[in-house]
Amino acid sequence: MEKLRVKTGSRNEMVDITDKVSLMVKKMGIMDGILHLFVPHTTCGLAVNENADPSVKADISGKLCGLVPEAGGYNHFEGNSDSHIKAALTGSCLSLFVEEGVLLLGRWQGIFLCEFDGPREREVWLKSVRQGDKPF
Amino acid sequence: MEKLRVKTGSRNEMVDITDKVSLMVKKMGIMDGILHLFVPHTTCGLAVNENADPSVKADISGKLCGLVPEAGGYNHFEGNSDSHIKAALTGSCLSLFVEEGVLLLGRWQGIFLCEFDGPREREVWLKSVRQGDKPF
Amino acid sequence: MEKLRVKTGSRNEMVDITDKVSLMVKKMGIMDGILHLFVPHTTCGLAVNENADPSVKADISGKLCGLVPEAGGYNHFEGNSDSHIKAALTGSCLSLFVEEGVLLLGRWQGIFLCEFDGPREREVWLKSVRQGDKPF
Repeated sequence: MEKLRVKTGSRNEMVDITDKVSLMVKKMGIMDGILHLFVPHTTCGLAVNENADPSVKADISGKLCGLVPEAGGYNHFEGNSDSHIKAALTGSCLSLFVEEGVLLLGRWQGIFLCEFDGPREREVWLKSVRQGDKPF
Repeated sequence: MEKLRVKTGSRNEMVDITDKVSLMVKKMGIMDGILHLFVPHTTCGLAVNENADPSVKADISGKLCGLVPEAGGYNHFEGNSDSHIKAALTGSCLSLFVEEGVLLLGRWQGIFLCEFDGPREREVWLKSVRQGDKPF
Repeated sequence: MEKLRVKTGSRNEMVDITDKVSLMVKKMGIMDGILHLFVPHTTCGLAVNENADPSVKADISGKLCGLVPEAGGYNHFEGNSDSHIKAALTGSCLSLFVEEGVLLLGRWQGIFLCEFDGPREREVWLKSVRQGDKPF
């Protein structure tokens, strides 16, 4: 398992981690298989979406805050229930394809860590399952 | 990796791709393992849900449009931010079980491509990880 | 493939299944790999979130019911369209990491079955892909 460190800059923010993940595919030496991503946190999520126009990630983040406002009559004593709810909606894991040593994404796709309770330093865990791995 | 082509007929629509995916399991010769599905697009998603009563998929699609309306004061210049947001909510990947050559789903479950910016021609990517694959 | 049985007690409820899943990792003898979870139902989902303060799961469940109310002018004849919609939002599958025989989660993370049409008896399916599995 490998770990990426991701620094987020505001309470709600989608941080593009595509380049970091692609570099890790090289570093891990994955040629063909599935790359699993997982965030070990309860107030951030993972998503695949457009990273060409930066207003897309702002619109996604903004609309999630509109649907799940910070002040919502919640019971959790820490006051960040909205963060937990948005994390449940986006999800904590992704399974991505790798072939010929390259992370396969659609033309407009990037990978995002969705911060809902920043700014913080976050971790993204990566683990691969490879075609043709030697058994041991 | 294999690819399915899926034609969608309207802007928002859930298209049942269960039969296409099941056929692909046969074609790929998967006997036992995990079948990963991925959409290389940023304005459609994947979901597993009921495919017995067609009103279920219409209700899901309709409610998502109610929560995330097309006109919502977004900034993205293409005018389809709602499509990107709904794609982030449903997600881009699925991991399904295969045993004895058969895709395992619950009694009422089907697999859906969730179109949020159609009509278009979409791709669904499929890649398997198999128990007992010969290493190479 | 292994199956867990989970009894839910009310219509909307997040049931902590972390201990059950951890025990199953031991029982299945998984040392290193990915553990896939799947619910074969169309009105419940899976999520990873905080299981320290029980008010978090109540806040998530409560907010989902606020966003997708039971009475919403739906067409599905069974009257539980809200349950299907909430299941589509949370998702049916998870991919979790296992190393050195231990299920790896963040400090505050637990695994939840998200019931949206209970009380019922539910199944959670588990299947692993292991590093170093012997081919057969």
